[in-house]
Amino acid sequence: MSFSPLISQLIDSLRILPGVGKKSAQRMALQLLERNRQGALKLADALQQAMDNVGYCKLCHTLSEEELCPQCAAPNRDDKLLCIVESPLDVFAIEQTGYHGRYFVLKGHLSPLDGLGPESIGIPDLVKRIEAAEFEEIILATNSTVEGEATAHYIAQILASKNLVVSRIAHGVPLGGELELVDGGTLSHALAGRRPFQ
Amino acid sequence: MSFSPLISQLIDSLRILPGVGKKSAQRMALQLLERNRQGALKLADALQQAMDNVGYCKLCHTLSEEELCPQCAAPNRDDKLLCIVESPLDVFAIEQTGYHGRYFVLKGHLSPLDGLGPESIGIPDLVKRIEAAEFEEIILATNSTVEGEATAHYIAQILASKNLVVSRIAHGVPLGGELELVDGGTLSHALAGRRPFQ
Ligand SMILES: [Zn+2]
Ligand SMILES: [Zn+2]
Repeated sequence: MSFSPLISQLIDSLRILPGVGKKSAQRMALQLLERNRQGALKLADALQQAMDNVGYCKLCHTLSEEELCPQCAAPNRDDKLLCIVESPLDVFAIEQTGYHGRYFVLKGHLSPLDGLGPESIGIPDLVKRIEAAEFEEIILATNSTVEGEATAHYIAQILASKNLVVSRIAHGVPLGGELELVDGGTLSHALAGRRPFQ
Repeated sequence: MSFSPLISQLIDSLRILPGVGKKSAQRMALQLLERNRQGALKLADALQQAMDNVGYCKLCHTLSEEELCPQCAAPNRDDKLLCIVESPLDVFAIEQTGYHGRYFVLKGHLSPLDGLGPESIGIPDLVKRIEAAEFEEIILATNSTVEGEATAHYIAQILASKNLVVSRIAHGVPLGGELELVDGGTLSHALAGRRPFQ
């Protein structure tokens, strides 16, 4: 069987969405066509607008179409705390815990085998960010994976000479787990139980 | 926490997709922005094109942007068989079986409580379609729900006076299905529909 060309093209395109296989893509395409064309057009527009206009916050490097993201623009957050994460989704996860300091978002983690050194993941910008501000504590909230740990160690070494408390979120996060998949309660414990980085 | 406005708008729009909840929509939005903007733009375009141009096949009423869908346009299918289904997704399911006749797609099933009578679901067009062709057998492949059964009965009555074989897809134990897991109604059908063992 073949769907008509535009329907096939829509099904193929839906499969770029993470977690969407062939069957779901078919169901999505036909349901949109049958029941929600207006919603589908709004989605098309939202995709276009976001892809064309969303860039990176100039301060924390999370995704944002404005020069400063909501977390950096907020005047009433704790300017003594900086939390370093691997991706914008991690900002979202940490926000769920009630954390109220600032952020810095790396471009992932160090991965020498993939040619990803400190510059590729934005560590020079991180250092500049820290030097330009007056943080008292830096929380290393990279993933608890081998690469995330190595990245945390690397950053801790770089910051060792500065007059800063450098902490690591507690291992309430399951080892090998990715931050964005952890439930909010576990993450709250991990944040509250953070300890000085050795 | 708030995402920036365009990201929030994208997340909300992704939730119109069947089976996509808040968490998946967040992950989808940020992954597209971080890793696949080109794919996302292609998806936006595919949605737009499909919503603007896909209509209904004039012969079988399945979704198609061409006047005739691939199944109706194909010259080498069996013109003596017509299979009646409730939705375009059912056409797809039946095609997987190797069925090689023609189709007619109703707009769902009869549902008097929702004000859906024979005209709303396209039965007058079905009758015209049958009268204009030379089918020998009509296969009622509406769902095995109460409404699907009622719809099949209604169509069978209407076609009773015509010189046609009218058949209904069999109900029974699904292949690979364990008897103890099958509901009683299905099992009754399976027993009543038993056939000589070869
Ligand atoms: Zn920011
Ligand atoms: Zn057709």
